[in-house]
Amino acid sequence: MKKNAIYAQSGGVTAVINASAAGVINACRDYQNQIGTLYAGENGILGVLTEDLIDTSFEPQELIEGLRYTPSGAFGSCRYKLKSLEVNRREYERLIEVFSAYDIGYFFYNGGNDSADTCLKVAQIAKELGYPIKAIHIPKTIDNDLVVTDNCPGFGSVAKYVATSIREAGYDLESMYKSSTKVFILEVMGRNAGWIAAACGLASEEAGQPPHIILFPEVEFDQEKFLAKVKESVETYGYCVIAASEGIKDKYGKELSASEHTIDDFGHHQLGGVAPVLAGIVKKYLGYKYHWAVADYLQRSARHIAAKVDVEQAYVAGYRGVELALQGRNAIMPYIKRVSQDPYLWEIDAIDLEHVANKEKFMPREFISPDGFHITQQCRDYIQPLINGEDYPPFINGLPAYVRLNKQKVAKKLAEFTIK
Amino acid sequence: MKKNAIYAQSGGVTAVINASAAGVINACRDYQNQIGTLYAGENGILGVLTEDLIDTSFEPQELIEGLRYTPSGAFGSCRYKLKSLEVNRREYERLIEVFSAYDIGYFFYNGGNDSADTCLKVAQIAKELGYPIKAIHIPKTIDNDLVVTDNCPGFGSVAKYVATSIREAGYDLESMYKSSTKVFILEVMGRNAGWIAAACGLASEEAGQPPHIILFPEVEFDQEKFLAKVKESVETYGYCVIAASEGIKDKYGKELSASEHTIDDFGHHQLGGVAPVLAGIVKKYLGYKYHWAVADYLQRSARHIAAKVDVEQAYVAGYRGVELALQGRNAIMPYIKRVSQDPYLWEIDAIDLEHVANKEKFMPREFISPDGFHITQQCRDYIQPLINGEDYPPFINGLPAYVRLNKQKVAKKLAEFTIK
Repeated sequence: MKKNAIYAQSGGVTAVINASAAGVINACRDYQNQIGTLYAGENGILGVLTEDLIDTSFEPQELIEGLRYTPSGAFGSCRYKLKSLEVNRREYERLIEVFSAYDIGYFFYNGGNDSADTCLKVAQIAKELGYPIKAIHIPKTIDNDLVVTDNCPGFGSVAKYVATSIREAGYDLESMYKSSTKVFILEVMGRNAGWIAAACGLASEEAGQPPHIILFPEVEFDQEKFLAKVKESVETYGYCVIAASEGIKDKYGKELSASEHTIDDFGHHQLGGVAPVLAGIVKKYLGYKYHWAVADYLQRSARHIAAKVDVEQAYVAGYRGVELALQGRNAIMPYIKRVSQDPYLWEIDAIDLEHVANKEKFMPREFISPDGFHITQQCRDYIQPLINGEDYPPFINGLPAYVRLNKQKVAKKLAEFTIK
Repeated sequence: MKKNAIYAQSGGVTAVINASAAGVINACRDYQNQIGTLYAGENGILGVLTEDLIDTSFEPQELIEGLRYTPSGAFGSCRYKLKSLEVNRREYERLIEVFSAYDIGYFFYNGGNDSADTCLKVAQIAKELGYPIKAIHIPKTIDNDLVVTDNCPGFGSVAKYVATSIREAGYDLESMYKSSTKVFILEVMGRNAGWIAAACGLASEEAGQPPHIILFPEVEFDQEKFLAKVKESVETYGYCVIAASEGIKDKYGKELSASEHTIDDFGHHQLGGVAPVLAGIVKKYLGYKYHWAVADYLQRSARHIAAKVDVEQAYVAGYRGVELALQGRNAIMPYIKRVSQDPYLWEIDAIDLEHVANKEKFMPREFISPDGFHITQQCRDYIQPLINGEDYPPFINGLPAYVRLNKQKVAKKLAEFTIK
């Protein structure tokens, strides 16, 4: 008796999470003699809870191929973390109720830390209730902060985007600093881990090339040292390009961007962004002409400049996830193992979720230069292969021709469930 | 007797101004029996005034080909507007002194409105002083605000970048608004003219597709109407994506971003950006979860996603500029004429600078929808062909392999000149 499957996307989307979806869908289609219908939760786990399910059988193969080059979460994602089993057992039991109603034997959950935890709990309660399921966590996060795996699908593409962007902005500054802007700040994502900021460092291949300063959340922000470094850069190279993690904190552990409660001339709250705060500091103490950019969602959805290796890893992680489930594996995460550095080679292995859930991987100290303002060669060696290769989407009328799925909904058969 | 030539880059750089430089250089090399050495002003007109000249003969042909795909101003650009002849005759006379010392017969000035004006004045004073020169203005500006020309080299690429970026961010919002961000604001350049914001509108090909709102500097910002439109979009589509020109103004003509003098918790000035101001308004009056991005220099240096047609037009404008000079034309600008809409065809013509200098082209009212929040079909028809085609730079180690020139300086032979 073939069991059906459910796939759901979770958390902040990436340029390649849909490539993982394509991998899961194609694997289910390739193994259709062993696996039944593949459903997808609309808007992630929320759709599974509320029985808002999409029957992926209605998506033609060309749209699935389109997922490989379409950013964001095609089935909808959500920021919703299931609480602990003790606090919210009701939700886990509901998941099992839905699984049971649709004869689900496989649960593929595509997300970051929180999702690994949820996936593990689903496996645990299913076991407790005697419901047979293979729960597989497909890794995804631009933050690159999952443990065990060498890197996370989604990171390579954002890394390529930010390194390209800061290189381009660096050329801009270099050509104009004599009479114009001397300090440029690019704010990138990374609340706790500085991997994305670190990736900006790849743009600097020789001494003096931008970025000149990288600010990591792992390194306490010291205003004096920062200003001295900016001054030194301007005096040495004529200008200073800075990559700043959104999550940089002062010595009290307070985020610099927490000055988001300023009131502007209109009486409105001026909101967020560490880049304008840093610009303010530079302006006040050094007086240099500055510019700043905040990439925000642009960086995690920039499929037009995704890394080919990232697209492939995302796809294969999804595809292998299905194969591992069919081999009887449960409560695991397929992860990326670096087999060789030069040439860069990787393969997929599997790890039990208990080794992954609720853990976070930060930048190791040896990846950060002694002064705390740049990356080391060791860090370059780690990140560089992850941005390799281009994998451009097709363009129509000058714009990337991303796809939208049909999202054929399944008729509900259970009692309504309210998210509390 | 062959005369020599000087080329200089002026004002804010673009993704394709170096393609114009390549056009000028290649034309001078192709016509070397009629034209002597091509010098370039280091950092634009400043380098011409201070006799900081680069001999372009020392640049190998492969670097000139590299200029075609390298953003920013390879010879250095500057923000320096020569004052009127009456106020600062000294600088114009210095230019003629430098021209004379280097036997310059051709002056190619690559810039926007201000440069057109400078170029015209150079032609005028040369005539007055009896110095024979052919002064040619090569158009360049991301702002697309030069008159006469159908469009400006530099605009197509920034248009392609912002339309791609807001489409990608739109997909992001679409997949997550149910449980996360409902309003996203992308701030783009455009202090007076809304062409770049208008280009964002290309991303929306069907009703309901992002961006849902475009804010132009040509349309007075009305907070009530804006909030009503945001609310309507969120209630209709579930979310709202906004493209905002940096230069939007209230009914008193005051820029919204002028609330740059807010003080944050650190006592620092919080600087600039209309996006956070708009986010603050949305937060205060509607309470929606928001995110915002400021593209800043990323947009004008994003050579990795330049429009092929833009690269070609920039190159040909430079090349034709040299040919026009050799035909004896003076005080003119080669400009782009749209010969046919479908298929899009263009050619280069020439216009006297007195018809171009000190004029600015704004978005015509018929390009803006009646409610002031979007573009019309007429506007789409105008902008769309300008973003056509991709022209990717080569990549090495996952990053665009942009070039840097040798910039061989010429030994000075004149008395020092101080910029006042």
